[in-house]
Amino acid sequence: MAKLLITGFEPFGGESINPAQEAVRKFEGRKIADIDIEVRYLPVVHGGCWTKLEGYIKEVKPDIVISVGQASGRLDISLERVAINVDDFRIPDNSNKQFIDEPIVKGGPVAYWSTLPIRNALNSLRASGVPASISNTAGTYVCNHLFYRLMDYIAQDNQNIRGGFIHIPFLPEQAAKFPGQQPSMGMETILKGLELIIKACAA
Amino acid sequence: MAKLLITGFEPFGGESINPAQEAVRKFEGRKIADIDIEVRYLPVVHGGCWTKLEGYIKEVKPDIVISVGQASGRLDISLERVAINVDDFRIPDNSNKQFIDEPIVKGGPVAYWSTLPIRNALNSLRASGVPASISNTAGTYVCNHLFYRLMDYIAQDNQNIRGGFIHIPFLPEQAAKFPGQQPSMGMETILKGLELIIKACAA
Amino acid sequence: MAKLLITGFEPFGGESINPAQEAVRKFEGRKIADIDIEVRYLPVVHGGCWTKLEGYIKEVKPDIVISVGQASGRLDISLERVAINVDDFRIPDNSNKQFIDEPIVKGGPVAYWSTLPIRNALNSLRASGVPASISNTAGTYVCNHLFYRLMDYIAQDNQNIRGGFIHIPFLPEQAAKFPGQQPSMGMETILKGLELIIKACAA
Amino acid sequence: MAKLLITGFEPFGGESINPAQEAVRKFEGRKIADIDIEVRYLPVVHGGCWTKLEGYIKEVKPDIVISVGQASGRLDISLERVAINVDDFRIPDNSNKQFIDEPIVKGGPVAYWSTLPIRNALNSLRASGVPASISNTAGTYVCNHLFYRLMDYIAQDNQNIRGGFIHIPFLPEQAAKFPGQQPSMGMETILKGLELIIKACAA
Repeated sequence: MAKLLITGFEPFGGESINPAQEAVRKFEGRKIADIDIEVRYLPVVHGGCWTKLEGYIKEVKPDIVISVGQASGRLDISLERVAINVDDFRIPDNSNKQFIDEPIVKGGPVAYWSTLPIRNALNSLRASGVPASISNTAGTYVCNHLFYRLMDYIAQDNQNIRGGFIHIPFLPEQAAKFPGQQPSMGMETILKGLELIIKACAA
Repeated sequence: MAKLLITGFEPFGGESINPAQEAVRKFEGRKIADIDIEVRYLPVVHGGCWTKLEGYIKEVKPDIVISVGQASGRLDISLERVAINVDDFRIPDNSNKQFIDEPIVKGGPVAYWSTLPIRNALNSLRASGVPASISNTAGTYVCNHLFYRLMDYIAQDNQNIRGGFIHIPFLPEQAAKFPGQQPSMGMETILKGLELIIKACAA
Repeated sequence: MAKLLITGFEPFGGESINPAQEAVRKFEGRKIADIDIEVRYLPVVHGGCWTKLEGYIKEVKPDIVISVGQASGRLDISLERVAINVDDFRIPDNSNKQFIDEPIVKGGPVAYWSTLPIRNALNSLRASGVPASISNTAGTYVCNHLFYRLMDYIAQDNQNIRGGFIHIPFLPEQAAKFPGQQPSMGMETILKGLELIIKACAA
Repeated sequence: MAKLLITGFEPFGGESINPAQEAVRKFEGRKIADIDIEVRYLPVVHGGCWTKLEGYIKEVKPDIVISVGQASGRLDISLERVAINVDDFRIPDNSNKQFIDEPIVKGGPVAYWSTLPIRNALNSLRASGVPASISNTAGTYVCNHLFYRLMDYIAQDNQNIRGGFIHIPFLPEQAAKFPGQQPSMGMETILKGLELIIKACAA
């Protein structure tokens, strides 16, 4: 019996919803493949997102942590492979702060690998007809920031926790506001994908 | 009480399914906003597609004809504005014939407008969060060929029929085979979109 | 000995230059393959662009008219196949006017074909390593408006003139302002392409 | 007086030329901003590319090493920020070997930063109208492999060398074979870009 903490970010960048928050919400109170799921929501704020997540990890004591974020412009579910130690924000975060080329953790390693089973998850997603890729960059915004802090925390003295980050596309209702410009993925495909990822973690 | 004939193409281009066929199938036997719907399927064959459709029109005697086709690479539901009088096939059709820069109807007009209410449909789709655009080219393959033949037929002596063509993206299960390359749209979003288009025709 | 009138649009859409204007400028006073070239510049203004062009046609008395415009987002030189009878502006023109779904010429035909040798030009461009396509839509903005008016003028009583429209991508210096978003084409490739198109017209 | 070793890859992936090889060739025997330039060419072969480069470094004794590679599908000059410790080849290399999720250096760190002045180079490129981005992934193919090996070599006991990797788009003559699909950059823009990068290294 394992415990999973799954998080979704709040809206940012002018959007009124965040598909990550909408999607993880649907897992509240659920159990999948013998994994108990706890759901939490995080602010798109440098620093603040990790303070919150650290608190939730201490509260929930999960075996697995999956953080989910929105990636506009992406076509598919992106299984992030690596978090890098840099904040380089194209737009300010929700607390109106912006960072250019600054380390997330001074003196920290350049990067951390995801410790989720991303290859198995990828195979499972594709076999089930869910568009998915292993991504080699989680960007340099708050998503990558949170991902790096999480993996740094795990690397310190919590190596029994497996963690990682998943990016998902816009929902159709978000893309509808950018005619002909933004790809999207329907909620049912996103949910099917996240469930397969959780099952891959259980295997 | 109006009657709608909606058609979907069979698979082509190496695909084992066609989202158009899969989607229109869901409307069999349905009535939407006082419109009786008849569904038919068409081969991706130059000439043959229209021969079939003409037969179905004579059988069904519809007030409205909507033909639906797959457009790989497109992000949204494309309400085609105009059919042009040229066959210029990038790949052979399902009968292995290919045409370069040949007129569809010799001596026919350069182009025909769709007579579906595409602007109203667009407004309705966007208001409902379905990604959609008015498209100014239906290509020069079998989809445009059918669209032109349909509008030419209507222009001759069936001007009481309204007709047009809708392109829809790949389904997620098709896009999953082209990692990171093909946008897609879930079936439920496609169905929601087609239903809104039908309702716009009824209004 | 033939005479060619080639036109380029002035800047619009927030740009300080227009690659079309910059490119055609390089042909001033030149003769290519026995074709004398006259260059003129046109405002990105509904109506006004054609009034100007009509005046230049009457002044220059060309055998061939090639109008060139900028198409942001396009990767290659687009040989436009067809002009359609609709103004549907996504942004206002340079006189701050915007039109939605209005005919360019009331009662005019739905569309006109380009009468430039676009297939021969395409073959020549590709053989010479210049990225190029035949495009089936010139959009519904001022470029298509001018193209339609030109072909309508020719269709009336000037059928000895051959005419058409070419879209070219952003220049690198324009794309540099939209990092990672806009493809571009260097001036020397654009000039090589336009020269090949002119030669195809001479053949 | 500094010495620069700049390398370009040979053709791969079905291409008969590699823009990287074509571009760096133009710097043979040149001196820019007091930097003496040595040019070498590398095979697109796992392992073999680094064996060659290590030999050239020992021969040339450079202060700066810039490796340049082709990235199809990219719009601009990509200043690579980070090399990651994984080989995950989508296609086999030129010796017909393919690797999935294997470490480049067993026990090596997850990633290395480029030590080229990529931010200054970016500012210089953009100010000069050359489309450019800082890229957060050099992929997981031979380019990233070489980049990682180079930075690992420097990290061991050659920390006086600055090194990094630059990706450049297809040339127009390559893109011309993939109509409407591949962005490109002309040689003169690539050369202008590389020269600005070299100058940024000199500053």
